[in-house]
Amino acid sequence: MDAVKAVLSGNRLALARLLTQIENDTSEGRTALDVLFSHTGNAHLIGVTGAPGTGKSSLVNRLAHFYRHPPGKAEPVRVAVVAVDPSSPFTGGAVLGDRIRMRDLAGDPDVFIRSMASRGSLGGLANATAGVVQAFDAAGFDLILIETVGAGQAEVDIAKLAHTTLVIEAPGLGDDIQAIKAGILEIADILVINKADRPGVGNTESALRGMLNLAHPSRYSGRFGNSILQAEGSEAEGEMWVPPIQRTIAIDGTGIPELGALIADHRQHLEDSGGITRRERFRLKSELENMLRETLVTRWRKEIPESFYQELLDRLVAREISPWRAVEELIDGGAQS
Amino acid sequence: MDAVKAVLSGNRLALARLLTQIENDTSEGRTALDVLFSHTGNAHLIGVTGAPGTGKSSLVNRLAHFYRHPPGKAEPVRVAVVAVDPSSPFTGGAVLGDRIRMRDLAGDPDVFIRSMASRGSLGGLANATAGVVQAFDAAGFDLILIETVGAGQAEVDIAKLAHTTLVIEAPGLGDDIQAIKAGILEIADILVINKADRPGVGNTESALRGMLNLAHPSRYSGRFGNSILQAEGSEAEGEMWVPPIQRTIAIDGTGIPELGALIADHRQHLEDSGGITRRERFRLKSELENMLRETLVTRWRKEIPESFYQELLDRLVAREISPWRAVEELIDGGAQS
Repeated sequence: MDAVKAVLSGNRLALARLLTQIENDTSEGRTALDVLFSHTGNAHLIGVTGAPGTGKSSLVNRLAHFYRHPPGKAEPVRVAVVAVDPSSPFTGGAVLGDRIRMRDLAGDPDVFIRSMASRGSLGGLANATAGVVQAFDAAGFDLILIETVGAGQAEVDIAKLAHTTLVIEAPGLGDDIQAIKAGILEIADILVINKADRPGVGNTESALRGMLNLAHPSRYSGRFGNSILQAEGSEAEGEMWVPPIQRTIAIDGTGIPELGALIADHRQHLEDSGGITRRERFRLKSELENMLRETLVTRWRKEIPESFYQELLDRLVAREISPWRAVEELIDGGAQS
Repeated sequence: MDAVKAVLSGNRLALARLLTQIENDTSEGRTALDVLFSHTGNAHLIGVTGAPGTGKSSLVNRLAHFYRHPPGKAEPVRVAVVAVDPSSPFTGGAVLGDRIRMRDLAGDPDVFIRSMASRGSLGGLANATAGVVQAFDAAGFDLILIETVGAGQAEVDIAKLAHTTLVIEAPGLGDDIQAIKAGILEIADILVINKADRPGVGNTESALRGMLNLAHPSRYSGRFGNSILQAEGSEAEGEMWVPPIQRTIAIDGTGIPELGALIADHRQHLEDSGGITRRERFRLKSELENMLRETLVTRWRKEIPESFYQELLDRLVAREISPWRAVEELIDGGAQS
């Protein structure tokens, strides 16, 4: 496995090739990941999600720049960005995004930015994203920012599979945005109000604080930011993290050092509380289940004769058979063939 | 099956109970749908999607009102609304939404509004949505509006499984919304610019026209609004529908009769061109495949011993085994047990 050795030794071209293999779900990609997986587990994974119009991409750009040029005597770290865009199956949006970003960070060998567009199914995209993150981790990137474009449940599901999840808001995004926030707040470790120079920033912050208080009457109940994970792991352990709210203006860098400090605090907190172990387990379990789901369907499809499938579909369209009966016939038919 | 008879005869309470059974995926629900399915295929399904802040809910409300109080001598039709909100797994957002809507349309026995929040997996939600739509169809609702909250790929996937898909935009929703539009435009049969009294509406319309022209250099190439379906069905048949752009102001009703007319035009067009048959087949195929996926995973999970699963997860977290090897061991282990 020369390719694997090259990736482990920091060869960018080998890494870029591997990422393409992973995106295309080739057997070479799978074999390489199989070997690389034992080298993972060192990177800090940061998920970034939020509605369109909040300026996520600019913020991620600024954060990458911050980690490359840290304040004081801190050492720069190696940064990877994975920008996941499930809503662009047909367009070159992701590629265009790459080019715009590259201007800021171009030429720095310790920054790697990869945009991922949909490859058919959402499950496939989530699998590919997990694989790309593993490759960056094995290749020695210290920090991996996983940004999702769009504000749907699938995007949130991808972003939450990180150690630290940032939820980005912005003032004045419309009236029904409140409904979105309610669900998304549950996954936030850090809330960011970007475009904080816009009118209405005070209202946005008050609304966010109000919703936090509404959802969790005591701010120190230890039920913040990790409801899902606590449901999975031991509640007694209690991560006791209260999601802070940070204002930023990504275009001029305001608030970015403070945000960087909060991310470091959260990481430290996860290590001190033992929360990191629980999150790792939850994260890997979710990855495994998604991969299982895709593999089961792929294997099953190979077993079903196409003519049998089309015939059932004809009967379904003619309303001669219900979808549930069709599923039963297909699964039993597949098992017998 | 007294419940089924009651639903077919228009009993609202029986229908409400059935919808809950479908949402909870009970065996009663499945049995009822199995019988009801042969009574489906009469309703016109209208998907409504778009980014947060575009005023989708108000627009859907207005449309429902329009169909209950049509202009001129047209007969009112029976309308159902299915509001799908995958981003609110924990909150009462959907229920609150119901109450707000009900004020306008309350007491009308020929309007039925149902909000659906996430029940765990997205696949499960899509299945439940398909089932609820079938129940409304069998119960004799002429028109079913399927509204998705959020702007992710999953929401788009649900909305596009309709006969006519409306994509809602609004002026001034931020700078990175353009990227979202590009992917979403491909599924639009009708583009709506809501909140058309806001500044910047001319720019929004120009941008949309520009993107339509960019994506499809000839406006009469017949490749509009149905790229996905054409890839599935016969391209030669050529639906030749150019997605119109309609400005609306949902809060005062401006543009709603015109939008209603465009929806009727699209329906007529689908019937004249034979496109309706192709869309029905595509729609049912997608529903079937989603149902298959969920069923395969559920059946498989029942076969795997929990201890075996947890042990593999431990080895995964310890990086002793890669996710791909774990999947292989789980599937082979499941087949043997």
